[in-house]
Amino acid sequence: MSTYKELKRACFEANMALPKLNLVVYTFGNVSQADADAGVFAIKPSGIPYEELKAEDMVVVDFENQVVEGKMRPSSDTRTHGFLYQRWKGIGGICHTHSTYAVSWAQALRDIPIFGTTHADHNTRAIPCAPPMADDLIAGDYEYMTGQQILDCFQDKQLSYQEVEMVLIGNHGPFTWGKDAQKAVYNSRVLEEIARMAYLTLQINPDARPLKASLIQKHYDRKHGAGAYYGQESC
Amino acid sequence: MSTYKELKRACFEANMALPKLNLVVYTFGNVSQADADAGVFAIKPSGIPYEELKAEDMVVVDFENQVVEGKMRPSSDTRTHGFLYQRWKGIGGICHTHSTYAVSWAQALRDIPIFGTTHADHNTRAIPCAPPMADDLIAGDYEYMTGQQILDCFQDKQLSYQEVEMVLIGNHGPFTWGKDAQKAVYNSRVLEEIARMAYLTLQINPDARPLKASLIQKHYDRKHGAGAYYGQESC
Amino acid sequence: MSTYKELKRACFEANMALPKLNLVVYTFGNVSQADADAGVFAIKPSGIPYEELKAEDMVVVDFENQVVEGKMRPSSDTRTHGFLYQRWKGIGGICHTHSTYAVSWAQALRDIPIFGTTHADHNTRAIPCAPPMADDLIAGDYEYMTGQQILDCFQDKQLSYQEVEMVLIGNHGPFTWGKDAQKAVYNSRVLEEIARMAYLTLQINPDARPLKASLIQKHYDRKHGAGAYYGQESC
Amino acid sequence: MSTYKELKRACFEANMALPKLNLVVYTFGNVSQADADAGVFAIKPSGIPYEELKAEDMVVVDFENQVVEGKMRPSSDTRTHGFLYQRWKGIGGICHTHSTYAVSWAQALRDIPIFGTTHADHNTRAIPCAPPMADDLIAGDYEYMTGQQILDCFQDKQLSYQEVEMVLIGNHGPFTWGKDAQKAVYNSRVLEEIARMAYLTLQINPDARPLKASLIQKHYDRKHGAGAYYGQESC
Repeated sequence: MSTYKELKRACFEANMALPKLNLVVYTFGNVSQADADAGVFAIKPSGIPYEELKAEDMVVVDFENQVVEGKMRPSSDTRTHGFLYQRWKGIGGICHTHSTYAVSWAQALRDIPIFGTTHADHNTRAIPCAPPMADDLIAGDYEYMTGQQILDCFQDKQLSYQEVEMVLIGNHGPFTWGKDAQKAVYNSRVLEEIARMAYLTLQINPDARPLKASLIQKHYDRKHGAGAYYGQESC
Repeated sequence: MSTYKELKRACFEANMALPKLNLVVYTFGNVSQADADAGVFAIKPSGIPYEELKAEDMVVVDFENQVVEGKMRPSSDTRTHGFLYQRWKGIGGICHTHSTYAVSWAQALRDIPIFGTTHADHNTRAIPCAPPMADDLIAGDYEYMTGQQILDCFQDKQLSYQEVEMVLIGNHGPFTWGKDAQKAVYNSRVLEEIARMAYLTLQINPDARPLKASLIQKHYDRKHGAGAYYGQESC
Repeated sequence: MSTYKELKRACFEANMALPKLNLVVYTFGNVSQADADAGVFAIKPSGIPYEELKAEDMVVVDFENQVVEGKMRPSSDTRTHGFLYQRWKGIGGICHTHSTYAVSWAQALRDIPIFGTTHADHNTRAIPCAPPMADDLIAGDYEYMTGQQILDCFQDKQLSYQEVEMVLIGNHGPFTWGKDAQKAVYNSRVLEEIARMAYLTLQINPDARPLKASLIQKHYDRKHGAGAYYGQESC
Repeated sequence: MSTYKELKRACFEANMALPKLNLVVYTFGNVSQADADAGVFAIKPSGIPYEELKAEDMVVVDFENQVVEGKMRPSSDTRTHGFLYQRWKGIGGICHTHSTYAVSWAQALRDIPIFGTTHADHNTRAIPCAPPMADDLIAGDYEYMTGQQILDCFQDKQLSYQEVEMVLIGNHGPFTWGKDAQKAVYNSRVLEEIARMAYLTLQINPDARPLKASLIQKHYDRKHGAGAYYGQESC
């Protein structure tokens, strides 16, 4: 019996949430769940349709990209997941999709401005769009460098991965993360809604401006600040 | 056994209509139902997913924000509900959502113009967008002042809360109300459709104008006027 | 037992198709089915939610607006239906909705240009948008005059109701008709799709032009011309 | 018992996927599956609603448009399918729909630019929009010439049908193909999503540019190149 049964089950369930939340068509997405102590993560196998996916199909990989358990080839984006788990302590899940509105902002090479409290309930900054990487990096270890691309983007824009749990890869699509795979999937769904609302906002008013700093801070703090009062104590 | 069993059931059922009507993702919404004689209202507990919600979870609160019955923390927007019940006699339900199109108009800081009879069947005015409140009020009793913000907006624009049962909070989203919680939810669904149609109307014709006064009045009156002839006598 | 049992059943089934086809929210629509020989039609009762509707609730009315059978008040738009049945020989069903894209074109006061073969498969002309009627007519027998408004529009634009089975009432929404109620509903669904595609076409290319006359005629004729070869012989 | 039972079943199942994937309304689409060795293909009968369709209704036709088996009239677009099977060796399925976003680009007479990796995962070129054909060809053997129109478009733009498995017919809609009918349907679904994302991209940033050549090639090659590493070995 597998040592990673629970890890694989958690990863499987988070993956299965993607089609239910309309965040993927066909196989255009993947979620992983990490076990930081064991230094491994479970991830979706590459190219398998969600309707055929089983918990035991999840592939367990270490942070150096070696398969630890599983018969199938892991997601083609596995290197990006491993790169981020290795560098960002405390994240336990990563989600990548090609969800429609998030991808459209990524293709437009635009950060998503913070226009309202739906966005500020989750973080206080524009959702960053990482610029495409250099040609030689694309030709090299592309998926590993996608992790670097995300890291560089957060450094350039002075963002904290603990606050902003989402990024757009320019001309590609979104990556999100969180304390576990379910939170990463939650962030993907929230990002898609924020992306859709920001798009519509600019269509209605091309001169729309970010909401004011005091309102951003109020909404962020009531959910995440020291005196947070959203949700139940135990949540 | 609870004195408020029926109140909580009505509140619960109205809340459960939100995901069914595609007006919320996750927990981004709340509905309350008031008992004016008892001076209390039942409201959704904060941060509980709709799929886990039960009628007995509803929290009963008085108009001064004291919990009368319930083990959970009420919605973070409870103060706004209480403020409005205290001032607006005759309303028995309030609904708050982050529905996509209504939020987008709120983020654009634009009133929704009255472009057609779908809108005029419900009221005769543009749906108002209340401007963001001052920084010191945001830092203070924010949710209470959100109620004040709505009141001020209706005063500034000389609107009747009995006719116009909906408002947009700038950079945030919609609040709606009515004789009971079900009517408030109905108004949220209607507002979302009006918001979507108005958005599309301006995309098709950026110079679109409100419909003429005689047509607004005709449609409003055939549903709500003295000689109303829409629906059945008993409705 | 009712003489009109079959008429009412056909009317009921056509009405129930509206929510299934996403053409209505709440009660914003109505369908009728006529029996030309008997000089009557069955129509939805006013303001009754679709989920509560029963076949026996349908109201039978003659072309002069007299209720022949039924306990409920017929749709508030009944006069418009009667007007058209009286004047347009051969139509057996009429459908009115507030479907999103068709309403948006109506609110924009724009005819829907003929941009592609999806449109030309059904008729060869822009879908007309009837301008709002004069104030005194609105204040008078409004629903009756809505019928007149449609008739005038078809005369002004030299359209045949036998070819173009759909119209937009400016600032209001669409009416469609056909040989029976099911065909009228079909036309409402097709109109909504044509309206959506035409909207998107103009967003992608604001200088988009109608398709050429030879292609319009080819597609119309292969479905409706003398040598039509679409569908099965018996259809 | 039919020699073509399996061919018809495969064709039927691919057709039934269209409504499930929201690619058709009513009967606006058709799929065929070919047996190259036998020189025949099965195709949907003309004008039959999907909910009534049965596997045994599929019509078997040879590449010269002669019905080999089946009581019904084949799709009105059958000649286009036959034309392509005759000329493009190795394709085993063809799909035609009036899906909303693909049709809108076709009506706008615009190629769909390659804005992101979702597109580059499938081919390396803009999705071509074939210009409308000359009037005399429309009046002649229209559906046969639609095949010629596609061929001419691919020649003019120097495209390979083995790489780019999709085309837009100007003012009409998309045709897609692949190794079998299921792959053709898959391509229709992917095209619809690419068309929707490209539309949104240009709405967000009217100056959006195609992604860079190195990134296009990387994504295409990791799925389709000599060293492809997407999916499982056996896929």
